[in-house]
Amino acid sequence: MSIIMIERQILEKNDAVAQENRTLLARHRIFTINLVSSPGAGKTSILEKTLEHLRGRLNVAVIEGDVQTDLDAQRVARYGVPAVQIVTRGGCHLEANLVREALETLNLNEVQLLIIENVGNLVCPSNYDLGEDLKVVVASTTEGDDKPLKYPPMFRNASVLIINKIDLLPYLNSNLATLRNNALQINSSLQIFETSCTTGAGIEAWCTWLDAQIKR
Amino acid sequence: MSIIMIERQILEKNDAVAQENRTLLARHRIFTINLVSSPGAGKTSILEKTLEHLRGRLNVAVIEGDVQTDLDAQRVARYGVPAVQIVTRGGCHLEANLVREALETLNLNEVQLLIIENVGNLVCPSNYDLGEDLKVVVASTTEGDDKPLKYPPMFRNASVLIINKIDLLPYLNSNLATLRNNALQINSSLQIFETSCTTGAGIEAWCTWLDAQIKR
Repeated sequence: MSIIMIERQILEKNDAVAQENRTLLARHRIFTINLVSSPGAGKTSILEKTLEHLRGRLNVAVIEGDVQTDLDAQRVARYGVPAVQIVTRGGCHLEANLVREALETLNLNEVQLLIIENVGNLVCPSNYDLGEDLKVVVASTTEGDDKPLKYPPMFRNASVLIINKIDLLPYLNSNLATLRNNALQINSSLQIFETSCTTGAGIEAWCTWLDAQIKR
Repeated sequence: MSIIMIERQILEKNDAVAQENRTLLARHRIFTINLVSSPGAGKTSILEKTLEHLRGRLNVAVIEGDVQTDLDAQRVARYGVPAVQIVTRGGCHLEANLVREALETLNLNEVQLLIIENVGNLVCPSNYDLGEDLKVVVASTTEGDDKPLKYPPMFRNASVLIINKIDLLPYLNSNLATLRNNALQINSSLQIFETSCTTGAGIEAWCTWLDAQIKR
């Protein structure tokens, strides 16, 4: 009982800081997405393809959340965008105060789109608002088509679902229509994109949508 | 600071209950594995193949951990083994007291092998001892070959690594040797199996090893 109250206090404090982040980002007219998924669903690959596609068109900054390493920030930095690595040292999700610290290191006047890549985890990040405009959940075809039913909060709290690794569908028992239906059963207003970072399929549609969200 | 202490108390309490579970399981000469992985790496599929392979040779029982549904227990029950579903209601890992409750519902005199399938999560379950003999971590080739470096505690605390979905390697950028090396860099004593639940490759080697661990 006392533990539940502590958790609630943590969330309340987190939500207050998230709201401050949101105000700060809105003041700078920065559109912010919080990218979440299981480990290995392809968040960083989608991020790389997105940076490649938007290069020269938009000023993008990236905040990377990882349990331990800065491998992902290294991958992202190659695209010439400002990248801040947050290492959670075992923590299974990002929190708003960590994002606030990261924001302090960025020149927000030069950012139009901020992409926060959360820790790879389908459970923990779902309850933690970071101050983003919306959550984008990535589900890869190789994880099976039942994941929205098994991890509903993440799909319920997201606005966009990217179904990634569609190039592997011919080799899987996983069914794309079932995955879509399961996701829409949990959250009927999900905007869905289907992508492959190997073939490049669907990346343009996703980036066009993303570009249209920018506050110009 | 106080939060860290609370977490420590929770872990201490968990470890005490885990030790009770371990004593209980040892008294019944039950070999117990704690199966962990990312969502969708193939824990349940490996479990199904294992049950199929060991049918008639060993008395197996299963404890399923899920955030929300009993989909996995339904899949497992088809193999005619006792299956207990634990639903964590949002919790990102199993705890020893939940496993103890599950053990009370099983006839332990008729069990030789207990397989506990943890919640799909590469972070949270790593610190929670359930009373198992050993942890088996499943990493699928589709998650990329960098996961041991990004989520080291899980690979450090496991005794066995099952590299699953090896049938998909021809279609991936992921490298099997790199994945093996990264895992061994984190934990040089890992026993490694390579499997595909689609082709059945490697299942026999894994089951033969598992069978040899049984206390007869």
